[in-house]
Amino acid sequence: VKLYHDKRAPNPRRVRIFLAEKRAHHEIDLELAVVDIAAREHQTEAFLALNPLGLLPVLELDDGRLLRESVAICRYLEELYPEPCLLGAEPYQRAVIEQWNRHMELELLVPVSQTFRNTHAFWKDRIEQVPEWGELSRKRSLERLAWLDRELADRPFIAGDQLSIADITALCAIDFGRISGIRITEDQPNLTRWYQSITSRPSTKA
Amino acid sequence: VKLYHDKRAPNPRRVRIFLAEKRAHHEIDLELAVVDIAAREHQTEAFLALNPLGLLPVLELDDGRLLRESVAICRYLEELYPEPCLLGAEPYQRAVIEQWNRHMELELLVPVSQTFRNTHAFWKDRIEQVPEWGELSRKRSLERLAWLDRELADRPFIAGDQLSIADITALCAIDFGRISGIRITEDQPNLTRWYQSITSRPSTKA
Repeated sequence: VKLYHDKRAPNPRRVRIFLAEKRAHHEIDLELAVVDIAAREHQTEAFLALNPLGLLPVLELDDGRLLRESVAICRYLEELYPEPCLLGAEPYQRAVIEQWNRHMELELLVPVSQTFRNTHAFWKDRIEQVPEWGELSRKRSLERLAWLDRELADRPFIAGDQLSIADITALCAIDFGRISGIRITEDQPNLTRWYQSITSRPSTKA
Repeated sequence: VKLYHDKRAPNPRRVRIFLAEKRAHHEIDLELAVVDIAAREHQTEAFLALNPLGLLPVLELDDGRLLRESVAICRYLEELYPEPCLLGAEPYQRAVIEQWNRHMELELLVPVSQTFRNTHAFWKDRIEQVPEWGELSRKRSLERLAWLDRELADRPFIAGDQLSIADITALCAIDFGRISGIRITEDQPNLTRWYQSITSRPSTKA
């Protein structure tokens, strides 16, 4: 099994952290293969054969079958390697984790990514940028951090009492925001406490 | 059980169609409650108590527990009412359906929605619009329809041989595109065939 990834992109990192949590409990035979976005390796014919959308990560199984999309890959790994449970143990909990993972993705990671793509010099000659949309996305991202701080007042993790995929998505979104000046602020004690707790886990170095 | 929805918004429609497919096989006790976005009912204090993000749909269980986010609600319904199977029957199939549902959401429904929000008169005095981003999103949406037409050359449904949640997401995205001039074109025979097949299902009137 091979995971195609990029070291700096947030979506492959979601899978690497998920995998590192699983590897504390399971022996998992999986190798990493770098596809360097900065060197435009995600646009080569060879990579587009794996994913015509040119997006990372991609998981290649030993029989050649492919899986794209971070959450789809995580769901597959969860079923093969159940410990620790990161997608929920019963129907309502699974739905609540899905809800929070979607919130962290659609309300945080998407605007953080759109800020980066539309305002950063890295993308200047690579894509058509709309700086005004990037600024609106930055504002939205900062509003969502303030909301998340309030949400975390009464619980240790984003979807409840236990670590879940929603924490991993939130961490990757927040760390990815740094390059665009999107950061947790001093007046956000709950988010600060959550961030310190999450980043103390060895898996987040993956 | 109560589902808060809006008749014209695409995300509540995803749940209504999913539910209609389930109701062909299960008796489901669920009532609908309209939250009219055009009348700004999603911004009332009463609704924000159900979802502080002001987003539809929301599912309210009989014991008062809440579930937000269309796909989280669908996942919960799938576990309670397994027929027909719309999220996959075994690990790899479940992951492939998740992959395609995410593609239909992130690559199609998100740009279609951003086109509408950033270009349509409906939102003019309601949100800060960036028309240039709306136009880029329209272009992206049309490119994705062309890609989807090629993908559907060799299979009847978006994730394979059977109807899945990915078809529902794609249908809601495409129908929602109409108001922004995003439509399937005559030179897209596979997408046209798929669209005719999907819309012949009674569930899509839900």
